[in-house]
Amino acid sequence: RINGQRLWDSLMELAQIGATPKGGVKRLALTDLDKQGRDLVVSWAKQAGLAVTIDQIGNVFMRRAGKNPALPPIMSGSHIDTQPTGGKFDGNYGVLAALEVVRTLNDHNIETEAPIEVAFWTNEEGSRFVPVMMGSGVFCGAFSLETAYAAKDTEGKTVGDELERIGYKGTEVPGQHPIGAYFETHIEQGPVLEDADKVIGVVPGVLGLSWYDCIVTGMEAHAGPTPMALRKDALQISTKIMQEVVNIGNRYPPYGRGTVGMVQVFPNSRNVIPGEVKFSIDLRNVSSELLDTMHNEILAFVDKTSKDSGLSISVERVSYYPPCPFHPDCVNAVREATATLGYSTMDVVSGAGHDAIYTARLAPSGMIFVPCKDGISHNEIEDAKSEHLEAGCNVLLHAMLGRAGV
Amino acid sequence: RINGQRLWDSLMELAQIGATPKGGVKRLALTDLDKQGRDLVVSWAKQAGLAVTIDQIGNVFMRRAGKNPALPPIMSGSHIDTQPTGGKFDGNYGVLAALEVVRTLNDHNIETEAPIEVAFWTNEEGSRFVPVMMGSGVFCGAFSLETAYAAKDTEGKTVGDELERIGYKGTEVPGQHPIGAYFETHIEQGPVLEDADKVIGVVPGVLGLSWYDCIVTGMEAHAGPTPMALRKDALQISTKIMQEVVNIGNRYPPYGRGTVGMVQVFPNSRNVIPGEVKFSIDLRNVSSELLDTMHNEILAFVDKTSKDSGLSISVERVSYYPPCPFHPDCVNAVREATATLGYSTMDVVSGAGHDAIYTARLAPSGMIFVPCKDGISHNEIEDAKSEHLEAGCNVLLHAMLGRAGV
Ligand SMILES: NC(=O)NCCC(=O)O
Ligand SMILES: NC(=O)NCCC(=O)O
Repeated sequence: RINGQRLWDSLMELAQIGATPKGGVKRLALTDLDKQGRDLVVSWAKQAGLAVTIDQIGNVFMRRAGKNPALPPIMSGSHIDTQPTGGKFDGNYGVLAALEVVRTLNDHNIETEAPIEVAFWTNEEGSRFVPVMMGSGVFCGAFSLETAYAAKDTEGKTVGDELERIGYKGTEVPGQHPIGAYFETHIEQGPVLEDADKVIGVVPGVLGLSWYDCIVTGMEAHAGPTPMALRKDALQISTKIMQEVVNIGNRYPPYGRGTVGMVQVFPNSRNVIPGEVKFSIDLRNVSSELLDTMHNEILAFVDKTSKDSGLSISVERVSYYPPCPFHPDCVNAVREATATLGYSTMDVVSGAGHDAIYTARLAPSGMIFVPCKDGISHNEIEDAKSEHLEAGCNVLLHAMLGRAGV
Repeated sequence: RINGQRLWDSLMELAQIGATPKGGVKRLALTDLDKQGRDLVVSWAKQAGLAVTIDQIGNVFMRRAGKNPALPPIMSGSHIDTQPTGGKFDGNYGVLAALEVVRTLNDHNIETEAPIEVAFWTNEEGSRFVPVMMGSGVFCGAFSLETAYAAKDTEGKTVGDELERIGYKGTEVPGQHPIGAYFETHIEQGPVLEDADKVIGVVPGVLGLSWYDCIVTGMEAHAGPTPMALRKDALQISTKIMQEVVNIGNRYPPYGRGTVGMVQVFPNSRNVIPGEVKFSIDLRNVSSELLDTMHNEILAFVDKTSKDSGLSISVERVSYYPPCPFHPDCVNAVREATATLGYSTMDVVSGAGHDAIYTARLAPSGMIFVPCKDGISHNEIEDAKSEHLEAGCNVLLHAMLGRAGV
């Protein structure tokens, strides 16, 4: 069993770096604060006797030797960068839970067959630099190192320069690092576990996701003198599509998701009929077939709405992550560890993307979820219970030991 | 008949002050450019032999003496301030058409019984300082001089200080200036005349208007892990109300108007279910009864939507202008002048507020509309035909002469 108090204390100590007045954390990728956070985790790893490797995109791997150095390491980790108004647990928990596993093995002088590695991936959040999950994405070859280096923040600073500046541009070629299996513990970021009063979520996979930008172009006109019949109101037409996005999410339960999160209205003036509205569409589901169906339905609806209204409507896909089922071996390892430890449990498909969807392209991967308060994340009030974090870490310990061999 | 070329040339000369690259005008109330515009109009008035009076809110009255000085003046005017991306005609046409009437009377040495006055009112647009129609509002006692003086722009500068600075804080007490009758020529700001291919709009009155701020409060949550059934999506509930605003406008033709022009979504992030949406509602109609009915319907709908959804929704009225029928004598004067001159014509109720709704509280008032291209105003591409502007000015000349007596 791991030491829950030590895990909690480490989480709280790391959360000091970039702590916000409202109890959250602001530690954006590749800032000075990210460097301080990285340095602290690396110093803890060194105290625990781990050997540290950094790759060219700044992913950090911290290795505890195994009896058989020829075996690929059993790895666990996540990220320590946060949202601008982020919390203490998202990502950080996954990294420090992995470190706590190592500390526990050290406490009990347990030697494993395969090496054990703790990892943190660069810029998972994608808040300062897009795309999200950048470090693990480069690692698995989803996009190139050059693309990632060239990404700019709002001030025009690049990932390449910022990595150099904070001293985390390593030498190892991304993806050259072997992985035997990868586990990631994470807060659920949703309300399902709390709602069902369960402690451990076994994660069979991650929903696929399609992101779109939709632009409806009408005719800007004065709200007073323009009769209803002569209007081309871009917002009214947009509301129909916004509702259909949610209808589509509802049409494919239990994993269908349809969300409009971002809206810009032009010129956005009280007495002007909107001439243009731009909004985002986020569709998710568990299989490519279902996600493709949802994709086709929104495109057909937009087409019909444009024809019916006579307004021009463009919809462009801006991101796509296919559904990611995790490897049965890893899912079962988590399920069995949970049963052995006797925690209440249920399967929870991850609705959000995680670094594990990229490691899954290279090695058997799996995830362990624990509840977070009210399902809230990406928010300074994000919260989780110490006993749940401890339980998730115990499951991680057992799942990793099972894969690494004692 | 007035001199259409001289009217056009004066419009184009005034439009140089604050001219924008796209062919519009940016001459916000009480700026240096507004002072330059005021100075130019006042210099033209002095060349035409008019006596200039300025009141404490900066309204300017330019008088051509009548045979009978005891009679209250027959007044015409509008405003010369513009929207930030405004056009050359909105307001400016009404002021320069009145000046052209005087110039024409001078050309023909015509003496009128009552004096003739050209007026421009301070800050009609309300872009830099709220409320709109400030000068005429103070003049008719809709709100106090102190309230108007205290109004601040985004930099914290006040109307009182800015009036002083540009030299247009006069001494006359607002409202102390007598008015026998008031006429205002204006571009229609809507598509009705152009659509019906008519030159002159006789304006029986102005729609009443109710403005509201509506705030829907849901629960911010991650778009991926939050199942559809556990959401409190503030945007989805908002779209129902936005559609009902338009339904209500449609339900009371021909003068019902329902518009949502301004929307803010929080936190406005692609993968976050909106936790709060704030939007404006603009309802208009021709009678208090109809406007009250529309008011009650939107309130009832919001109430029902809040109960059905379980989300808290607030709706607050932020402005109200009652419908303003113009005085039959003035409406008839315009109708008869149009008939005499033989222009094609129709009645067009004004959908937008104008200074004339405030003068109507003190004296018989009326308006004359001319078409504007595509019904567009409050836009740099605002446009109008010289022959239409000339026709409107001829109608104004005849209507004023009829009231002033020759
Ligand atoms: N975990 C997480 O918030 N990932 C960001 C991408 C997504 O919206 O799923
Ligand atoms: N003429 C004009 O644009 N007035 C502003 C107030 C309104 O929206 O009617």
